[in-house]
Amino acid sequence: MAAEPSIQDRLYPELPCFGCGPVNERGLQLKSYPRDDGEVVATFTPWPEHDNGTGFLNGGIIATLLDCHSAAVVTQEADRRGMRAFDGALLPFLTAGIDVRYRRPSPLVETVELRGRLLTGDESQMTAAVELWWDGKVRAEASALWKRWRPRV
Amino acid sequence: MAAEPSIQDRLYPELPCFGCGPVNERGLQLKSYPRDDGEVVATFTPWPEHDNGTGFLNGGIIATLLDCHSAAVVTQEADRRGMRAFDGALLPFLTAGIDVRYRRPSPLVETVELRGRLLTGDESQMTAAVELWWDGKVRAEASALWKRWRPRV
Repeated sequence: MAAEPSIQDRLYPELPCFGCGPVNERGLQLKSYPRDDGEVVATFTPWPEHDNGTGFLNGGIIATLLDCHSAAVVTQEADRRGMRAFDGALLPFLTAGIDVRYRRPSPLVETVELRGRLLTGDESQMTAAVELWWDGKVRAEASALWKRWRPRV
Repeated sequence: MAAEPSIQDRLYPELPCFGCGPVNERGLQLKSYPRDDGEVVATFTPWPEHDNGTGFLNGGIIATLLDCHSAAVVTQEADRRGMRAFDGALLPFLTAGIDVRYRRPSPLVETVELRGRLLTGDESQMTAAVELWWDGKVRAEASALWKRWRPRV
């Protein structure tokens, strides 16, 4: 896995996204990798300021990680299908919504794991299922809906 | 409005939450205020690193703002009803889920507005509706479910 570039570094190396942009020096710089079984995985070590106020990982940061990890799932799938960004667009798809469920507290200090996979996808939209795991349990999960980005010209 | 403390400063001044903790010096420090008509409002000016990768406000940061703004709605309502945090809990309620819909791009430079209100609430859970507005239009909206925090003893 170490020899292979992340999905972010391979497909959008110049993106300044807060959660996963390789060039955002003040961002979270999430790195996601494909696994042979079709899952996409990542790890993330929270920063001290990512507190939810009770000593656990902040729900908004969790949503950010799940959103950006779903971006890796969807953009990789678009690439696999040969779907490019349209002229004037930077990515083939944009998030239309994310439904996050917080199941258990997520740790603030330990490294957490993200898992994701495509649920459905066609020419106009894709849905990814993403989860945040720690210590063998799902801490939070989300369904993220992405729609094809068609710039108005 | 300026003379009145924010909901965060009044009800959880010591919280280190990334999104709304008054004592988190590296956090977003959201400040929410009640209006006479029952709505709760806030403004937020994004930081340069809050880019979504396309020059607009990041969806994860939007989710963070909506989540924390819903915290203000719910915690204010709990306080109004005399519902205190249980022993061992820091807040009366915790987020169980948030369903975010992204309607239009949100600006990265301009100050955006948040609006929120309670939808339903009882002894065990509350639901808040929260929106992010700019230039007279809803940019994103969410429904946030909060459950009563009962620490296991």
